[in-house]
Amino acid sequence: MNPIQLRQSIRDMLNEDIGTGDITTESLVESNHQSSAILLAKQPGVIAGLPIIAQVFQELDPFFDFQPAVAEGQQVEVFQTIAVMTGSTKAILTAERVALNLLQRMSGIATLTRQLVDKLDGLSCRVLDTRKTTPGLRQLEKYAVRMGGGTNHRFGLSHGVMLKDNHIAFAGSLERAVEKVREQVGHMVQIEVEADTLEQVAEAVQLPIHALLLDNMDVQTLRKAVAMIDGRVWTEASGGITPETIRSIAETGVDAVSVGYLTHSATALDISLDFVEEGTEIND
Amino acid sequence: MNPIQLRQSIRDMLNEDIGTGDITTESLVESNHQSSAILLAKQPGVIAGLPIIAQVFQELDPFFDFQPAVAEGQQVEVFQTIAVMTGSTKAILTAERVALNLLQRMSGIATLTRQLVDKLDGLSCRVLDTRKTTPGLRQLEKYAVRMGGGTNHRFGLSHGVMLKDNHIAFAGSLERAVEKVREQVGHMVQIEVEADTLEQVAEAVQLPIHALLLDNMDVQTLRKAVAMIDGRVWTEASGGITPETIRSIAETGVDAVSVGYLTHSATALDISLDFVEEGTEIND
Amino acid sequence: MNPIQLRQSIRDMLNEDIGTGDITTESLVESNHQSSAILLAKQPGVIAGLPIIAQVFQELDPFFDFQPAVAEGQQVEVFQTIAVMTGSTKAILTAERVALNLLQRMSGIATLTRQLVDKLDGLSCRVLDTRKTTPGLRQLEKYAVRMGGGTNHRFGLSHGVMLKDNHIAFAGSLERAVEKVREQVGHMVQIEVEADTLEQVAEAVQLPIHALLLDNMDVQTLRKAVAMIDGRVWTEASGGITPETIRSIAETGVDAVSVGYLTHSATALDISLDFVEEGTEIND
Amino acid sequence: MNPIQLRQSIRDMLNEDIGTGDITTESLVESNHQSSAILLAKQPGVIAGLPIIAQVFQELDPFFDFQPAVAEGQQVEVFQTIAVMTGSTKAILTAERVALNLLQRMSGIATLTRQLVDKLDGLSCRVLDTRKTTPGLRQLEKYAVRMGGGTNHRFGLSHGVMLKDNHIAFAGSLERAVEKVREQVGHMVQIEVEADTLEQVAEAVQLPIHALLLDNMDVQTLRKAVAMIDGRVWTEASGGITPETIRSIAETGVDAVSVGYLTHSATALDISLDFVEEGTEIND
Amino acid sequence: MNPIQLRQSIRDMLNEDIGTGDITTESLVESNHQSSAILLAKQPGVIAGLPIIAQVFQELDPFFDFQPAVAEGQQVEVFQTIAVMTGSTKAILTAERVALNLLQRMSGIATLTRQLVDKLDGLSCRVLDTRKTTPGLRQLEKYAVRMGGGTNHRFGLSHGVMLKDNHIAFAGSLERAVEKVREQVGHMVQIEVEADTLEQVAEAVQLPIHALLLDNMDVQTLRKAVAMIDGRVWTEASGGITPETIRSIAETGVDAVSVGYLTHSATALDISLDFVEEGTEIND
Amino acid sequence: MNPIQLRQSIRDMLNEDIGTGDITTESLVESNHQSSAILLAKQPGVIAGLPIIAQVFQELDPFFDFQPAVAEGQQVEVFQTIAVMTGSTKAILTAERVALNLLQRMSGIATLTRQLVDKLDGLSCRVLDTRKTTPGLRQLEKYAVRMGGGTNHRFGLSHGVMLKDNHIAFAGSLERAVEKVREQVGHMVQIEVEADTLEQVAEAVQLPIHALLLDNMDVQTLRKAVAMIDGRVWTEASGGITPETIRSIAETGVDAVSVGYLTHSATALDISLDFVEEGTEIND
Repeated sequence: MNPIQLRQSIRDMLNEDIGTGDITTESLVESNHQSSAILLAKQPGVIAGLPIIAQVFQELDPFFDFQPAVAEGQQVEVFQTIAVMTGSTKAILTAERVALNLLQRMSGIATLTRQLVDKLDGLSCRVLDTRKTTPGLRQLEKYAVRMGGGTNHRFGLSHGVMLKDNHIAFAGSLERAVEKVREQVGHMVQIEVEADTLEQVAEAVQLPIHALLLDNMDVQTLRKAVAMIDGRVWTEASGGITPETIRSIAETGVDAVSVGYLTHSATALDISLDFVEEGTEIND
Repeated sequence: MNPIQLRQSIRDMLNEDIGTGDITTESLVESNHQSSAILLAKQPGVIAGLPIIAQVFQELDPFFDFQPAVAEGQQVEVFQTIAVMTGSTKAILTAERVALNLLQRMSGIATLTRQLVDKLDGLSCRVLDTRKTTPGLRQLEKYAVRMGGGTNHRFGLSHGVMLKDNHIAFAGSLERAVEKVREQVGHMVQIEVEADTLEQVAEAVQLPIHALLLDNMDVQTLRKAVAMIDGRVWTEASGGITPETIRSIAETGVDAVSVGYLTHSATALDISLDFVEEGTEIND
Repeated sequence: MNPIQLRQSIRDMLNEDIGTGDITTESLVESNHQSSAILLAKQPGVIAGLPIIAQVFQELDPFFDFQPAVAEGQQVEVFQTIAVMTGSTKAILTAERVALNLLQRMSGIATLTRQLVDKLDGLSCRVLDTRKTTPGLRQLEKYAVRMGGGTNHRFGLSHGVMLKDNHIAFAGSLERAVEKVREQVGHMVQIEVEADTLEQVAEAVQLPIHALLLDNMDVQTLRKAVAMIDGRVWTEASGGITPETIRSIAETGVDAVSVGYLTHSATALDISLDFVEEGTEIND
Repeated sequence: MNPIQLRQSIRDMLNEDIGTGDITTESLVESNHQSSAILLAKQPGVIAGLPIIAQVFQELDPFFDFQPAVAEGQQVEVFQTIAVMTGSTKAILTAERVALNLLQRMSGIATLTRQLVDKLDGLSCRVLDTRKTTPGLRQLEKYAVRMGGGTNHRFGLSHGVMLKDNHIAFAGSLERAVEKVREQVGHMVQIEVEADTLEQVAEAVQLPIHALLLDNMDVQTLRKAVAMIDGRVWTEASGGITPETIRSIAETGVDAVSVGYLTHSATALDISLDFVEEGTEIND
Repeated sequence: MNPIQLRQSIRDMLNEDIGTGDITTESLVESNHQSSAILLAKQPGVIAGLPIIAQVFQELDPFFDFQPAVAEGQQVEVFQTIAVMTGSTKAILTAERVALNLLQRMSGIATLTRQLVDKLDGLSCRVLDTRKTTPGLRQLEKYAVRMGGGTNHRFGLSHGVMLKDNHIAFAGSLERAVEKVREQVGHMVQIEVEADTLEQVAEAVQLPIHALLLDNMDVQTLRKAVAMIDGRVWTEASGGITPETIRSIAETGVDAVSVGYLTHSATALDISLDFVEEGTEIND
Repeated sequence: MNPIQLRQSIRDMLNEDIGTGDITTESLVESNHQSSAILLAKQPGVIAGLPIIAQVFQELDPFFDFQPAVAEGQQVEVFQTIAVMTGSTKAILTAERVALNLLQRMSGIATLTRQLVDKLDGLSCRVLDTRKTTPGLRQLEKYAVRMGGGTNHRFGLSHGVMLKDNHIAFAGSLERAVEKVREQVGHMVQIEVEADTLEQVAEAVQLPIHALLLDNMDVQTLRKAVAMIDGRVWTEASGGITPETIRSIAETGVDAVSVGYLTHSATALDISLDFVEEGTEIND
């Protein structure tokens, strides 16, 4: 992750919520008042984002002490303490919502990713994300996928070539498209081709490309495609991947499955922030 | 919505995906090539965000023609055409993913909101969103809630006072908290108090506040609270609102129910962008 | 106030003055040279802005020591020391003008506000600011109004609804305007209506609104309006408020008077920054 | 003025007022509704800023037609029409306050400047502004000074060297300070020295500097200083300049007088924006 | 190239030069004055950057007409007209320096690249740039390399993995480094390893990597390395590439040579902008 | 230099290289790992930029220790240690390229400047830079010129008036141009006129201007021009300045020579960053 962009993103996120000021907290809490609070899992899941939200609080209080109680990517149980923090009470109250919105979303993605990854236990097939991320949060969401055990597909349009139907149509043929692309881009750029049929697979596998996206093929067709490809290019199955189908798809021998809903439709993991009463012992 | 902030957000979102350039499209498509494409619903739902994504394409092609085929907030059926567009082929290919990511997310929120709103048919109770929005997308997500028939809670920490447990604790008592806030803020600022028990309701309703958030109360308790309040303050039920429970909760007589998962856990509505072949007729 | 926006504003203000560099100071003063200086009132007034300008100096020297000698909102006499500072000599010389420009303007506003507030001694009527603030300085100017004892009207177009003649004309009638607005906005948004005549007051007071702005009414009319309203809505008198008239206007029973010239025409309070000779004792 | 910075400033100013949206206007006015309006002087004065505020409206409506009825820097009478505009009704309502805040402030500065300039009729002495401008508005305020007939002092710390007491003290002597500066800066940079006494004048005038700021000298001392300088350097009187004293100070023979309150304490010129009824004729 | 980032870069560049305003042009030229001008090559070379500088002028005059007279990447002779333009005289005068600074630098890079590319005529070896670009100009400089016939190495640290000595040392061994990287990154990321000796080549070529950078090897060693690699990975020679040595290095059979001085030490191509007198005919 | 703009520039430069993350370093190096490294001159030259690149590393590691081993502007020999640093290994690896790109470019400019300055040993003639700087790097490049012993010409279009052919043509005559400019600008603004012929010199020297740029004159003409000017204005020779010609040009008696290629065509000084093995002694 880019730490400079991250810091700017965090400021933008806080600005969105704070607006012209947190009038509730400003009216009631002294600037020098300190408190402790904990983050508590309200449902089981995989945690991702603690170092990120530490920075959210530290943006408002540079001396804020934030201690994760679990590692990034760790599975937690209900009521497990996730982190312990001490710092400016105003910082906690003002930053709480942004911090939770981030942590819950990222942990939701990590949890969903882990569920799919676990389905592939024992197989070498990877679970990939896509570019179907929330606008503005791609780096954070792809980080969450990694914390859940998944692997990142390209980070954006400049991080690799993906040839789809329309690109091929504009070039005239797949062969011509690959040729034109290879004239333009350097050796650090991978080329992946999307194939919907075995005919397309047969054509693509002859060309100097790196990977094939096998789109919306059933298990039987995937198996044929994998046999036809015979290890000459890297393979990715896409479309119709569910917790129920993912293992059978992976068992066709594809190198990875890519799953858009990891990021576009994960639900938030329920986590709460609770102030600690004086004298309260923190056990986890 | 703020049109100037929106334009800047759209640029940021495109930058996130384009990075140092859409190398696939740049290698294959001429700058002056034009195409037409349509947006197609792949599942039924409520559409929100068409004027937004029109600007996404227009950011890359100022002369881009984008014609919505349905109104914002309209329910669509599977395979219904949502919009028709003509413009730079490069603009379509490069902006497609950002546009779909936005439209699918916003339509997903609108669809979920409409489902809850429809459950309250005939009641005057409103469906409210919360501040549990995606960081960076609050204005767009709250717009989507409106398109789904919901109503917006406050846009951020500066748009109203919300007194929760911790604020009250720091002030010493609810009465003192309300008093301190009223000294600081002007007459355009509303004060809402969160109450978890009927005792708190009884205390709060005596004070010069505008609204009460009745948090995590069961239907029976809610009914008692509403009776106790007797119209003196505006009421909002929160916590445990599901499609199954929402109507019975609303029937307690609260003025609104607020639902965090409208924005933090809505799933994307499936929508595709398809290039139109020459000679293809567009029917919807 | 939003601390993140404030920090960015301070950087923008320093950039405006520094441009490509403070060539005078850079040519003459060593980076590690330290000095002490004081801020001195050159005329009596109310001080506002010391925590802000502390950050101006600290932006150029993170270890800058800035000690206010008076509280925010405190009345000072001529030649009274306002603050004592020690830090990088370059920081003092380079930031001096921006710091003084801010402090003098904010203290000027606080002083003018206090003068009006004092006129209303013993009355419950409040002194309000308006949106007639200096572009770019609204948060700081409204803070200065608070330090002078005034109360803030809305911070901007998103912080409440204000229905004026033209809005009402576009809606067809005041009743229709209120109805349309209430369909769109949530319960945290207040609605205020501007009325120029008693007829308008009579109409408005029947509607579900929160406040009435009684615009440019003489004392006699105001008194009738207040009687007619009878506490049903909050009231604000506007127009023609001068130090001479403010008390008689307030005595009509309105809840507040709003005064545009608090921010658009306050004059700067004269304050100087003086370097302290070695051995000089600082007494205040 | 820098047109690119200006455009960005205008966006920042509109964002400050609009926040998350102009909820009043959005609730009531259709996007395609058009209106005409005029700007009307409510008091006599000198107008400055019309091309600026044209851009304020055009930022929200690119096709906005804004026709100044008077030239920049022109004196207007009460009730004189200043400009006529036609465009999106929403743009007018949403941008009105920012546009007026700018125009009233800039015209207030131009008016005050003109009053002082007129006092010097027949003399070659110029009226100068200072760096005591509103943070964020320096380019606009210095433009207003020019429109009022004044002349701009330096735009910031990088636009010339100004040696004051403290700079001289750090260098050891004025001679050493001038020498050190001349080693560092190029030939396009002017050097001005601040002198409080005739002794300082006598010393400074021997040195290779461009200008002397004669600070807080009475008329008699100024006359002696001007005689002593004898045209060898350009001279500027500063401190205690009022409408009453300015002519006698100018008559001492100084090249210019500089006046901080042109920008730090000018009061706004009263100008209103009025919608035009259909069928109304606009006469001015 | 990313068109949105490009537009912002152009604004930043113009702001750097314009500062608080082009006081020369503003004092002398009317806003509505139009002129024509041409760009003229003052020395032979390869042109790159015309579409970029068209936008520089259009930023100040949206209706600016800029007509390239040569194609991007075309070789021009002395006194050849490169482009013809008509638009606001102020825009031409104010933007001239930024436009020429860009065009001369980019054309200088394209010219140098072409010289090296021409040396490799008939060979399949490519000329690569590096990350040794001018901070802030990487996209533009890499575009210029392409226009000169070169090929781009990675655009930055996120566009591929490059394992150098230190990375390998921190991992313990090259094998472990490659393994760790492959666990973290996805299939669209290429891995290149830097090798200084044949021993390192022998080790690296066994591993699942994509490319080898053969650093500072003489021709004889390069030939051995290429033989040892035998097409299993892509190869790049680096270090000591001069116009004199480039062909013999390429003839060793490496796939590419990478040349830092393409971007860090290219000299500007001399190009002038000349106003066209009325009646002058433009021939090229 | 403006320290606030510098910090922002450094962030922008790092963002350009880091993009979505330094995937190599992130995969291999622990966040808390510390290393030491040195900067080593690979060729003789003048160093400029060490305090700047210290900030580059500190942007990624606030506790980074960076100790220059030579002063800014100091001449170094081959293999001389330039700086010693200790801090986060990740910061060193990720920031290395940006830091070297800056230091090599700035030192290249300083070295070239020093070469020319040394040619003028014993003369009072100065070596000036121009506005032919790299877009985005003007402050840094002009700083490098100063470190090489050169003097800065104006920093941009707002830092002085330069009247060239076209400006004069638009005004009608040089006399009229000077007059118009002097009406508009204040006393802190210098006016320089470009002259190509002795006739133009003769005309210009009569006018109230500060400096003359004698453009593309041969030594004999320059000598006549200097005689004709006779010290009435400051003089600058421009055009055709090479290491071979610079001394004879300076000996004509001009006050300065300005040299565009100082900034537009300086080549990078070769400097390397080397990690220090444990136990290695650093000698310089």
